[in-house]
Amino acid sequence: MTARGGIDLGGTKIQTAIVDENNEVLGEAKRQTPTSGGPKDVAAEMTVALREAAGAAGVETADLAGVGVGSPGDADEETGVVSGARNLPGWEGSFPLAEHLSKELGTAVRVGNDVQVAVDGEFHLGAGAEFQSLLGVWWGTGVGGGLVLDGRAWLGRGAAAEFGHVVVRRGGPKCSAGHPGCVEAYAGRWSMERRAREEVDGGEKTKLFELMRKHDRDRLTSGIWERALEHGDELAEKLIARAERALGIAIASAINLVDPEAVILGGGMGSRFADRALPVISEQATPYLFDPDDPPAIRAASLGDLGGAIGAALLVTRAS
Amino acid sequence: MTARGGIDLGGTKIQTAIVDENNEVLGEAKRQTPTSGGPKDVAAEMTVALREAAGAAGVETADLAGVGVGSPGDADEETGVVSGARNLPGWEGSFPLAEHLSKELGTAVRVGNDVQVAVDGEFHLGAGAEFQSLLGVWWGTGVGGGLVLDGRAWLGRGAAAEFGHVVVRRGGPKCSAGHPGCVEAYAGRWSMERRAREEVDGGEKTKLFELMRKHDRDRLTSGIWERALEHGDELAEKLIARAERALGIAIASAINLVDPEAVILGGGMGSRFADRALPVISEQATPYLFDPDDPPAIRAASLGDLGGAIGAALLVTRAS
Repeated sequence: MTARGGIDLGGTKIQTAIVDENNEVLGEAKRQTPTSGGPKDVAAEMTVALREAAGAAGVETADLAGVGVGSPGDADEETGVVSGARNLPGWEGSFPLAEHLSKELGTAVRVGNDVQVAVDGEFHLGAGAEFQSLLGVWWGTGVGGGLVLDGRAWLGRGAAAEFGHVVVRRGGPKCSAGHPGCVEAYAGRWSMERRAREEVDGGEKTKLFELMRKHDRDRLTSGIWERALEHGDELAEKLIARAERALGIAIASAINLVDPEAVILGGGMGSRFADRALPVISEQATPYLFDPDDPPAIRAASLGDLGGAIGAALLVTRAS
Repeated sequence: MTARGGIDLGGTKIQTAIVDENNEVLGEAKRQTPTSGGPKDVAAEMTVALREAAGAAGVETADLAGVGVGSPGDADEETGVVSGARNLPGWEGSFPLAEHLSKELGTAVRVGNDVQVAVDGEFHLGAGAEFQSLLGVWWGTGVGGGLVLDGRAWLGRGAAAEFGHVVVRRGGPKCSAGHPGCVEAYAGRWSMERRAREEVDGGEKTKLFELMRKHDRDRLTSGIWERALEHGDELAEKLIARAERALGIAIASAINLVDPEAVILGGGMGSRFADRALPVISEQATPYLFDPDDPPAIRAASLGDLGGAIGAALLVTRAS
């Protein structure tokens, strides 16, 4: 049996997939991430979601070659422990996620960093498959990153590719982690929503929050931002353009330092806005590039919503 | 015969060294870089300087295992051609430096990027010898960089580690190459001198240019900056502090992206001011670090004035 499982554990949803030896999807399932409780409650939902995907694929989880998990927070590939996953309920501390899930599912479980796992997926199977080195830029609630150099994930001392904390402007506004002027402080969806609220408090008009309520959301999702743009909302346009500008500058810094063959844009915001954002990001980056005549390829992630889960399933391949 | 030659080709001086199999220096020589003519005139001075070093070491250049050259501009390790070395006279185009020198010296010649070669020297023999990954920050007329990852120079597509063009402030002042707000625009000696002249034009008082004339210089060398600091010159203090701040922020961005084990500070300014600059740079970087509790080691280059030539001689070892 060579089917494998993949779980993309996000702050909003848990996406699972079962893939065969060619990484073709045999079954998938999605569940909401619990918003209360603790790691065990989250793990219970992960188990349910993976069992659903296995059911759709017609396999038992115990018959899988293994399951990979792309996790937020600090995911230790060696020990399988996940720590400080602050966008998950009650997960400030450490939890032995791989060990726990392994008992529930009856197969080996490996964990990895959610963004690195998604970038690995794009590298092996998606928009990055033709390249040997790439920078993944994951534009979502925060701004994450992943580096592949010479065909392998570059993790540094364990915290490399924190692209979101590349500085765009000394002394600029702070991101949710308190770092001043980093790209996440301009482009992360969390920071963009904060800025939108500040602008509204300052008297700006926008349809953003009206659309949020109308669509029964409690935050400005990427879909809400898109609808606001469709309505010609000026504040939404201004803040998206500001995010694109920041991404362009931080990407230029990263290119000057690492000089990868390609930059892959993914994440909830990145995937939704790639068509408009990629040309703007390229244009913004150009004046800052050491060699503007020879930029790397810059592309949208191509694996879609299942990319994180498919990338997570690759953790099983790498381990064997 | 296992002696090797190394040439550090700079815009001001040509430093040469002959080393034995243990990289101990057997002989050295230094000459001024020609300020007029073209590549052949520069190559002629390089030949004279290397012959002097060989003479001091008691060897013939034809008996050397080879000679390595650390060169400015775009130095192609494969072809031995150096292009666009704009701080050398008449060197806007391409010149087959390795081939030319090889005929003159009667031994194999290899060329490499000057900063990468110096960083390799520190990695193998100097301040970086205990680490497997490092970022070299070469603070001089410009701001250069070198990356060693997993024990090997990381060159990307050929232009990696252009640390000087990491952005510190969107839309900031331009460096000599026209990139806005990059670290070189704040910290490169060329940019610092331009800023000092602007401040003087704006009515600021400083001893910098008086000291320059007194010591018979036509530019603000690192020695002049040091003397001005010793005189308590406020403008010099302000501009050095501004450079240190920019270096700290750009180093933070680079750490967040690459997460190396160490950062090594070298170059004319870096080596001269390391004692005061290293603590300031660390302090400035901290608020911008993704993981401020676990920064990489940050150290001064330790090979001194001969580091570039000794590093260049390593090009011969790598080739064999």
